[in-house]
Amino acid sequence: MLKYQQIAKEIEKYIEDHSLQQGEKLPVLESLMTQFKVSKSTITKSLDLLERKGVIFQLRGSGIFVRRQKRKGYITLFTNQGFKKDLEDFQLSSEVIELEVRKPTDEVAFNLNMDLNDDVYYVKRVRYINGETLCLEESYYNKSIVTYLNNEIVKDSIFDYIRDALGLQVGFSDIYLQAGMLTEEEARYLKLETGAPKLYVESIFHLTNGLPFDFSKISYNYKQSQFYMQGNGQLL
Amino acid sequence: MLKYQQIAKEIEKYIEDHSLQQGEKLPVLESLMTQFKVSKSTITKSLDLLERKGVIFQLRGSGIFVRRQKRKGYITLFTNQGFKKDLEDFQLSSEVIELEVRKPTDEVAFNLNMDLNDDVYYVKRVRYINGETLCLEESYYNKSIVTYLNNEIVKDSIFDYIRDALGLQVGFSDIYLQAGMLTEEEARYLKLETGAPKLYVESIFHLTNGLPFDFSKISYNYKQSQFYMQGNGQLL
Repeated sequence: MLKYQQIAKEIEKYIEDHSLQQGEKLPVLESLMTQFKVSKSTITKSLDLLERKGVIFQLRGSGIFVRRQKRKGYITLFTNQGFKKDLEDFQLSSEVIELEVRKPTDEVAFNLNMDLNDDVYYVKRVRYINGETLCLEESYYNKSIVTYLNNEIVKDSIFDYIRDALGLQVGFSDIYLQAGMLTEEEARYLKLETGAPKLYVESIFHLTNGLPFDFSKISYNYKQSQFYMQGNGQLL
Repeated sequence: MLKYQQIAKEIEKYIEDHSLQQGEKLPVLESLMTQFKVSKSTITKSLDLLERKGVIFQLRGSGIFVRRQKRKGYITLFTNQGFKKDLEDFQLSSEVIELEVRKPTDEVAFNLNMDLNDDVYYVKRVRYINGETLCLEESYYNKSIVTYLNNEIVKDSIFDYIRDALGLQVGFSDIYLQAGMLTEEEARYLKLETGAPKLYVESIFHLTNGLPFDFSKISYNYKQSQFYMQGNGQLL
């Protein structure tokens, strides 16, 4: 983690520790520099990052203000951390239904930009939150990038493993999202009724070098899943 | 619109016009400077904006690559443009069910950070896409900010009016999202069955100065609505 990212984290913690609410003012730039013992250029980069993250907003001439007032229990969609981080207060676990090496379907090959003869790891899991079903997840990993997976890894956080053990840098993702009805199979795994509503999310995760490595299809239990995201008007 | 925003728009148009696909390379910085007749600092700011918007990604030493390969017909969630812009190929229209000045409920007052004695404009609309129902929308506007609304305005784009006629600058938004079941009333307006799935979205829109001015509750017709958004791993 770079210095300005580290400082951004510390400022976020400062906001949390002081329970600062939306609209409350942070110390001025000079005070932050002193407080966190960093240069002006570092603190500026940290603040820009926090602004993009939606934690603060900066008003020229007026100061730096706290933005976020996220409701509790919502999962942040605008992140590539995996949602484990977001739900630290909750008990999360995974049940592995299937884990095997396969050839990709046309759809998977298209989304991962790979050949039909290449290999993918197919992972099917049910994820639980506080003992209730959270989602049914089917993921396809390009095996030439994610070279090894086993039961133990996929029972825990696959993204932690990809970052820490494989040393890969997770970059951006494309997320497609809609509401729908649970199929009989999905309902069985989620312990809901066939035809109950679901939030259905398809994601394509890329490394920082632009290579797609993970294509996931997730059906969420509508009773357990609420999502939070931030829109940013600065973008054109 | 600032110069670098203008240029960012032109680069985006260039990508579209040339049907550049994910992973395709853009001209090098120097060529872009010549092509768009701008300074290095302007083109750099334009590219940073496009990177944050998820249109491109930059690899140090390798170049600038096209990122987006958005599926057709999806609404971009990560924007404050209102979705009119996203669906320009489609025929959009609104039916106004109700428009009146009210006192806010506790929930509305909390989300708009206003007093229970202040006034809000309450707007209830059904929005249509190609003749089908897209969503049922209930919005609350802080009347001390959005000082005037009439039927004609709310039949069209309220955000265009807020920007162009009132001269307000729309900033960031908080978006809460979940799947659920349609109530009888919602089903009637959306011409679906009671209990059918819905995507339910609550949004709080702020001006660039941080003031919340619009609290909206929207129930989407699950058959007509698909959303697209981008995750960005660079954020911590």
